[in-house]
Amino acid sequence: MSSAVLYMSMSLDGYIAGPNDGLGNPGGDNFGRLHEWLGSGDSSSGQGHDGFRPAGEQSAIVFEEMMSTGAVVVGRRTIEQAGYWGGEHHGGVPIFVPTHRPPLKDPPGQVRFVTDGIESCVAQAKAAAGGRNVLVHGAVTAQECLRAGVLDELQIHLIPFLQGRGRRLFDTLPEEVELEIVRVIDTPEATHLRYRVRRRPDSKGPETVRNRA
Amino acid sequence: MSSAVLYMSMSLDGYIAGPNDGLGNPGGDNFGRLHEWLGSGDSSSGQGHDGFRPAGEQSAIVFEEMMSTGAVVVGRRTIEQAGYWGGEHHGGVPIFVPTHRPPLKDPPGQVRFVTDGIESCVAQAKAAAGGRNVLVHGAVTAQECLRAGVLDELQIHLIPFLQGRGRRLFDTLPEEVELEIVRVIDTPEATHLRYRVRRRPDSKGPETVRNRA
Repeated sequence: MSSAVLYMSMSLDGYIAGPNDGLGNPGGDNFGRLHEWLGSGDSSSGQGHDGFRPAGEQSAIVFEEMMSTGAVVVGRRTIEQAGYWGGEHHGGVPIFVPTHRPPLKDPPGQVRFVTDGIESCVAQAKAAAGGRNVLVHGAVTAQECLRAGVLDELQIHLIPFLQGRGRRLFDTLPEEVELEIVRVIDTPEATHLRYRVRRRPDSKGPETVRNRA
Repeated sequence: MSSAVLYMSMSLDGYIAGPNDGLGNPGGDNFGRLHEWLGSGDSSSGQGHDGFRPAGEQSAIVFEEMMSTGAVVVGRRTIEQAGYWGGEHHGGVPIFVPTHRPPLKDPPGQVRFVTDGIESCVAQAKAAAGGRNVLVHGAVTAQECLRAGVLDELQIHLIPFLQGRGRRLFDTLPEEVELEIVRVIDTPEATHLRYRVRRRPDSKGPETVRNRA
């Protein structure tokens, strides 16, 4: 069965983008630091997304999993700053962008806008993924997926770095969410932590083990 | 040589205490969740700190290291909420509390207040530790130690849990800090991450690899 899996590089203090992010400064100041575990992306490292393949064997496992997903769900802020990746993220898979703002009339390449909510967006992506997993990306989108109970797993690349400021991955969650550790991959550049969102059997939403007083 | 090592249980989203913490509610709401990897502390589990020894062998390694430290540096907010641990944390080692507020006249047990700054506090603790490491505890104290360049290592017990609100371990760092991953211990209850703070050879402060624009 297809799972919606969040892939994010995060500093130990919880940041996934630097300060001052915007169209002219994608990912904010010093965004590269969080992604040093990946290849440099230049053409000498390979064509297209192959250029980002990490040199380390263990990190490459995680990278290959990410690149074998059958669809992408990504927040509009993220993909706008990335110039829509030129319309292609990897392998020609469809890219679904949940948005409340008017969508572009002619989205580039594989990009599709979804305006009827995050549940619909993830469902469409899963349907399009052909049984493969769905890559979820972006902090706002991650939190929306968690709130709606449609995020299945989290693959966090935890970077040995305290960034101090910027955008946090988890900023406003309305309730506690219990996770299960699925796998830990230990490399010098990043600790790759894979979690499954625990659910109550009778609920589509994430399990909240304790009520808040 | 003695190292100052921060020991903290932290949720994946960076919280080390729940909301509404105070004297009547030490550690805030649902504080226990972050410490489930430890023993329950009740007397049937053992005497004194032995009651907190985790059942799992791998987690016990980290616990034993913590309990073999020769001194404690702990923030005043933390130790006040903990009722000064009755004056004893473990093994009768001295407990140093950096503070700007007037200290208690007759601090209980092994507690000593230090009013001349965090550098002095950590130096006194190292001197008293008899070559053993120093256990550092508390979010404010951790950040003060990082800022002053007197924190050597961090032992984070990363809990598979999104807490959503409360007090964060890393809230206000004035600069980026590079870490080196020393060890990763993978257990179902917690991922025990040990980091060394990287320093420039010519500086006592933490290395800041990049200047902020």
